[in-house]
Amino acid sequence: MSRMEVKISGFGGQGIVLAGIIIARAAGLHDKKYVTQTQSYGPEARGGACASEIVISDEKVDYPLVEEADVLVAMSQEALNHYLSTLKEGGTLLVDPDLVPEVPEVPGSKIYKIAATRVATNELGRKIVANMVMLGSLVHISGVSTNKAIKEAVRESVPPGTEGLNLKALEKGMKLAREVADEII
Amino acid sequence: MSRMEVKISGFGGQGIVLAGIIIARAAGLHDKKYVTQTQSYGPEARGGACASEIVISDEKVDYPLVEEADVLVAMSQEALNHYLSTLKEGGTLLVDPDLVPEVPEVPGSKIYKIAATRVATNELGRKIVANMVMLGSLVHISGVSTNKAIKEAVRESVPPGTEGLNLKALEKGMKLAREVADEII
Repeated sequence: MSRMEVKISGFGGQGIVLAGIIIARAAGLHDKKYVTQTQSYGPEARGGACASEIVISDEKVDYPLVEEADVLVAMSQEALNHYLSTLKEGGTLLVDPDLVPEVPEVPGSKIYKIAATRVATNELGRKIVANMVMLGSLVHISGVSTNKAIKEAVRESVPPGTEGLNLKALEKGMKLAREVADEII
Repeated sequence: MSRMEVKISGFGGQGIVLAGIIIARAAGLHDKKYVTQTQSYGPEARGGACASEIVISDEKVDYPLVEEADVLVAMSQEALNHYLSTLKEGGTLLVDPDLVPEVPEVPGSKIYKIAATRVATNELGRKIVANMVMLGSLVHISGVSTNKAIKEAVRESVPPGTEGLNLKALEKGMKLAREVADEII
């Protein structure tokens, strides 16, 4: 990996920004990569699609915005529609199927349906940790950080007292990714 | 204001990243500006200076990194030493005097000493909200967002149940800035 570009998208309140920050900390502080993590807000953002961008590199990052995403995560239909064009040819797409009912064909790309919100709600009783479930799947599928680094970064970044719940959600996501990957193969 | 570049710097654990995110939300979602907010991590970051960068513009932001900071906040000596060279000529510098004992002369620049950590510790009993005190001062001095927008963004961004404490800290910071500004004039 010389440069990997990741975009996580959804709507406000899903913890998209926090997920991006956790990846950046994992890869930058713990895996010792160079990382920039950016979010953009604009007059058009309110209530609409929001995204967090992470660029990870073995060298210093000069241009910190995602130009072509190697990995795109979409946690809402609107976000997918808005950002799908930024997915690289042959890139990897993760969607939450309960929030993204219509996934177009993307020739050459691998698509993983990760039911993060359903797992967070039904198995953990806390919809709010759907972002952590998705994060676990993302790490397992993309290798954007090591497992050790992402766990460390989650522990450091979530509100004190919620570490256990968030780490459990992360591991659910990793497990989910293993199962989904088995189905695809 | 066509483009304003702000850099908040300190060490890990001070809530530098959160302060940057709150400004970005305030200006982008509530004041309806175009905003990007970036943090960088690298092998050199661990335990050292860390920074959050915010670019606010009336137009879409093409290059999201701070090139010359209009406003630099330093919450540690190491951060000031590391980032002072990025302060624009005639720019504004805010330092926490208990953490930054040595402030060099910066001809043409305005320097404000904001005792954020002392106020957070002594007046609010919670050192952890020093970032919110500094944020309040920053908004008052720089006008980077409206008061209404920053309060809204704080409310949305801090852990549930801590809104009151954080808003109180923010207001302490605004008050502190008024007093310090009076001294300077």
